[in-house]
Amino acid sequence: MIVILQQDATRAQIDNVIARIEQMGCGVVVSQGEERTIVGIIGNGRRLDPEQIERMDGVDRTVPITRPFKRASRDFHPQDTIVKLNGLAIGGRQLIVMAGPCAVESREQLLETAHAVKAAGAQVLRGGAYKPRTSPYSFQGLGEEGLRILAEARQQTGLLIVTEVIDPHLVPLVSAYADILQIGARNMQNYALLHAVGEAQRPVLLKRGMMSTIEEMLMAAEYILSHGNDRVILCERGIRTFETYTRNAMDISAVPLLKQLSHLPVVADPSHATGMWGLVEPVSRAAVAAGADGLIIEVHPRPEEAVSDGAQSLKPSRFAALLQGLRPVAEAVGRTL
Amino acid sequence: MIVILQQDATRAQIDNVIARIEQMGCGVVVSQGEERTIVGIIGNGRRLDPEQIERMDGVDRTVPITRPFKRASRDFHPQDTIVKLNGLAIGGRQLIVMAGPCAVESREQLLETAHAVKAAGAQVLRGGAYKPRTSPYSFQGLGEEGLRILAEARQQTGLLIVTEVIDPHLVPLVSAYADILQIGARNMQNYALLHAVGEAQRPVLLKRGMMSTIEEMLMAAEYILSHGNDRVILCERGIRTFETYTRNAMDISAVPLLKQLSHLPVVADPSHATGMWGLVEPVSRAAVAAGADGLIIEVHPRPEEAVSDGAQSLKPSRFAALLQGLRPVAEAVGRTL
Amino acid sequence: MIVILQQDATRAQIDNVIARIEQMGCGVVVSQGEERTIVGIIGNGRRLDPEQIERMDGVDRTVPITRPFKRASRDFHPQDTIVKLNGLAIGGRQLIVMAGPCAVESREQLLETAHAVKAAGAQVLRGGAYKPRTSPYSFQGLGEEGLRILAEARQQTGLLIVTEVIDPHLVPLVSAYADILQIGARNMQNYALLHAVGEAQRPVLLKRGMMSTIEEMLMAAEYILSHGNDRVILCERGIRTFETYTRNAMDISAVPLLKQLSHLPVVADPSHATGMWGLVEPVSRAAVAAGADGLIIEVHPRPEEAVSDGAQSLKPSRFAALLQGLRPVAEAVGRTL
Amino acid sequence: MIVILQQDATRAQIDNVIARIEQMGCGVVVSQGEERTIVGIIGNGRRLDPEQIERMDGVDRTVPITRPFKRASRDFHPQDTIVKLNGLAIGGRQLIVMAGPCAVESREQLLETAHAVKAAGAQVLRGGAYKPRTSPYSFQGLGEEGLRILAEARQQTGLLIVTEVIDPHLVPLVSAYADILQIGARNMQNYALLHAVGEAQRPVLLKRGMMSTIEEMLMAAEYILSHGNDRVILCERGIRTFETYTRNAMDISAVPLLKQLSHLPVVADPSHATGMWGLVEPVSRAAVAAGADGLIIEVHPRPEEAVSDGAQSLKPSRFAALLQGLRPVAEAVGRTL
Repeated sequence: MIVILQQDATRAQIDNVIARIEQMGCGVVVSQGEERTIVGIIGNGRRLDPEQIERMDGVDRTVPITRPFKRASRDFHPQDTIVKLNGLAIGGRQLIVMAGPCAVESREQLLETAHAVKAAGAQVLRGGAYKPRTSPYSFQGLGEEGLRILAEARQQTGLLIVTEVIDPHLVPLVSAYADILQIGARNMQNYALLHAVGEAQRPVLLKRGMMSTIEEMLMAAEYILSHGNDRVILCERGIRTFETYTRNAMDISAVPLLKQLSHLPVVADPSHATGMWGLVEPVSRAAVAAGADGLIIEVHPRPEEAVSDGAQSLKPSRFAALLQGLRPVAEAVGRTL
Repeated sequence: MIVILQQDATRAQIDNVIARIEQMGCGVVVSQGEERTIVGIIGNGRRLDPEQIERMDGVDRTVPITRPFKRASRDFHPQDTIVKLNGLAIGGRQLIVMAGPCAVESREQLLETAHAVKAAGAQVLRGGAYKPRTSPYSFQGLGEEGLRILAEARQQTGLLIVTEVIDPHLVPLVSAYADILQIGARNMQNYALLHAVGEAQRPVLLKRGMMSTIEEMLMAAEYILSHGNDRVILCERGIRTFETYTRNAMDISAVPLLKQLSHLPVVADPSHATGMWGLVEPVSRAAVAAGADGLIIEVHPRPEEAVSDGAQSLKPSRFAALLQGLRPVAEAVGRTL
Repeated sequence: MIVILQQDATRAQIDNVIARIEQMGCGVVVSQGEERTIVGIIGNGRRLDPEQIERMDGVDRTVPITRPFKRASRDFHPQDTIVKLNGLAIGGRQLIVMAGPCAVESREQLLETAHAVKAAGAQVLRGGAYKPRTSPYSFQGLGEEGLRILAEARQQTGLLIVTEVIDPHLVPLVSAYADILQIGARNMQNYALLHAVGEAQRPVLLKRGMMSTIEEMLMAAEYILSHGNDRVILCERGIRTFETYTRNAMDISAVPLLKQLSHLPVVADPSHATGMWGLVEPVSRAAVAAGADGLIIEVHPRPEEAVSDGAQSLKPSRFAALLQGLRPVAEAVGRTL
Repeated sequence: MIVILQQDATRAQIDNVIARIEQMGCGVVVSQGEERTIVGIIGNGRRLDPEQIERMDGVDRTVPITRPFKRASRDFHPQDTIVKLNGLAIGGRQLIVMAGPCAVESREQLLETAHAVKAAGAQVLRGGAYKPRTSPYSFQGLGEEGLRILAEARQQTGLLIVTEVIDPHLVPLVSAYADILQIGARNMQNYALLHAVGEAQRPVLLKRGMMSTIEEMLMAAEYILSHGNDRVILCERGIRTFETYTRNAMDISAVPLLKQLSHLPVVADPSHATGMWGLVEPVSRAAVAAGADGLIIEVHPRPEEAVSDGAQSLKPSRFAALLQGLRPVAEAVGRTL
């Protein structure tokens, strides 16, 4: 951390700041510029709270030097993390495709979709049993009944299951059925929930909050990692901007940037990022070309009857065609599908 | 709801859309424009899911006519809601001031602050016992010990207590100590939590998510109201933008707009909205001038030692001066302080 | 400026960076942290281009210490600038009210509005003769004819005239009619235009771009100041966010922040900031309470016939009532109206 | 256009609205919903100004049905526009690569870059002679001398020249040297400039404003098209968001969406979109995979000496490697490079 003093800071104020830093066991290097004094901190500055320093008289602001995330950082873990699960390796050369409906609506709907996405080439089935919905009057999911249907689909198809958990106290129940626990965008900073999945024995798919920075996302991953669960998969799913044509804006740079900053696998969600099924295919191609380790895509046998997010769901035939067209793109960047 | 067909929609597609609407028990009025056909829906369109309609062949998009919130809406509840609590009336002519530290750090710190804000004129004491922090390595709050300290401060000063709850299963515990339950910005769309406080017997201070629209905020209030708790206080606390000088941007228009759209009381949080103590006073004045029913302000006896959000906390003397200067502004808009 | 080296920077890379800085005539102070080396620059760092330094091998990033604006900064000009003009003092104790239609539509419309806003208490008449419109098919303004009508209104009422200039080559013509030249939000970074008004003999009302940071706004002011025109009035008019209920979000904190960072007068435009006439009054009060030196408000005798921005225009009677209600707020913060 | 009346609109107010619409030569269809009345307009609604209607008593809001852009719209021009220029076809099967430094700094720098990007496979040379810079104290470009150097580079290499024009009165001069006129992001809504290039005889590369919607961008294109110049190339270059790691966020969905909404060619600028040279390659691949018709990339022989935007410039060797790696991606989506 660096402390930048105010232009009119007095000698006494500067000495005070230095004393505070040394009291915490850190050393200082003082630079006397033409206009301002700057104090650099030597030693483990993580022990110092920048906000406390900024509130001292004579201090203008502080500048962080080290990134706040540690376990999630590539600096501390240079090799790629590959999340292994039932023969699947997420983060390796092979791309992982997760597909399925937004919500589990019925046994028929889910099984039909599961067989279709399996046939098209997906390895993981998605489907919500607990749905966070903007309106209290909308369908909130089938709950445990939905989990049971997902488990049956796994048995029939061999697909792994990823499903969202929205309450810390449901983590054991959801873990009993699902292979991967999903933290949704609205819960990315629900720390009670992050704590709970950090203690679970399942990999976690962590979706970026729709208005969360990349640093906040990596700090959310840090929560999970710091509670003992090192199998975290990051998911870029679009951020909120001023643009209204699309539901969100896929932050495509986040894909390679997360791979540079962190060792964790990164998948992309083109369905939520765009909100328009007609954009899912080109944005899927873009994500793979940018280096994503996988995709999570909404597929519904009859999108016009879907109880949620129908506008962004693909029919199985379109999904199959999408994967078909994606294969050469994957190969062009040295991946397999 | 209005359904706008695509320019090249066929007669069969239009008939299909009409059949679907009528099947749900609604009537239609069809307008044949020069370029497009438009279908207006008569009857309670809330039963129709716009996303299902949008996914039908030939449909371009749908346009909502009625607001999705009902219990939170002034249309359905024209009179102002006044939340009454131990002789306090939140939403009435008198402004309500909530003040205190970001986090309860110790008995001494909290009691000192409580007496100071009481003396300055506050009616409610704020202070976090459970803190949602970006980093897992930061202070997470004193937990129940913090709640006990808050209760002691109430006993000594007569101030009411508002404190944050971050886990649905802690709602009964927090309710046993606090007068008002706070839902923090990061949890505004944590529906498990909204459900839980909707069943609590305490008023709820609902903070706007930093990434949430006004409509989403009113839908979050709708969750609480629909579960039986009609004592909801809305709180504008700044939204995230591209600007980096301030921590957030106080959306000052939201204050009168929420008052127009809803009957619920609206308070403003200038501390989080700006993140800079030097801006808290002018922004407090602005919020009151714009029609806020109250303020929630961070006060700390020694901000430079605060374990969180020190940069936006006022010293008690500055807080007292702020209220002093606020009084004529309140009177200028017909309120008392 | 401070240079932060990469964690794995070599000795040779660090020496290279130091050599480059010394070559530009600056000194250095080197801090060797536990994880990284930091190089502080002594002397006038403004001569060094941060982007050049950042591109050197081994450099992670640079941190600016001094603000990039100089003439616009309060550090270099501690006293408030008061723009004096025909007996008016903009930036002094008295608030300045600019009012009028978005566009000059006809002689009758403008003269009627001018007399009405004069009677209500405005000192400056606004009205566009050259209109930047999103659509090429919309009314683009009356041009010089509009300027002539504005000049006639001044003669009849004694109001000063502020009007927008959108082309650098029209600056002399517009200056011949107007008292204050307005730079619109869309042109805030039109440097050819800033250069031109910087050489004009008229005060400039500089509107914040809807996508511009406070620093960019002060740099735009710096352009005008650096070309010799020191009569710049800053105008906060709302920024673009994800919220869709209002047209823009009035960044109310920007008003006191601009007053702290700069010596220039600051006015607020509640009409464009909200886009809804029903919000203009409360947001006007907020701006004055937050310390604005004046307001610019759209008034139209028949808003429903206005050729642009009718939805945010007040009728003269509402405008008069607004000023009436504003007077006690102004007095509450030590200003007169 | 559809007009939505307020819930409590009176019969007289509704009749008034209908009369106004009919007076403009349009017909109406009235839908009487349970809660509100809705008036649909039949005939060419473009003649009606929605803001005028919205300001009428009893009106809640209006909903546009037809897109405001016409000449830029694929509805009115279903075939792809291919901009032909000296044997080059922009918008066809072959991808177009524009490359070069941010600014022309010297004859040596530009010629060296030109030969390098030509050798690597670029077809167009970029380089600014007039630079819009945030600070008035930064290098503003070599002006006409820069244009002459660009022309010499064309003669030596056969590359076409694209360069920015920032003042409407410089359009003839810049057109005398350049093959393609660039409108920079800051000038996307500089209507005087759009008007001027609309009358020029050169194709225009129109960059999206950093906080402009897709609709605003197409309306800016509409300005150019409506003044007679039908050779417009759209450029997605990233939008401003709350994220601070990257300079802007490449709105990757905008690429396929612009291709769907419009017939104009679309190129992507990964250098400005990311601001970090380490992200230029993956984001270039993403843009091509998403369907871009070309790329514009910053290349500088010695980025650490570049006078602007060094941090996002590639060295020629990296640029050559980027194109090498891009070829299989282009082929994977049916394009050639």
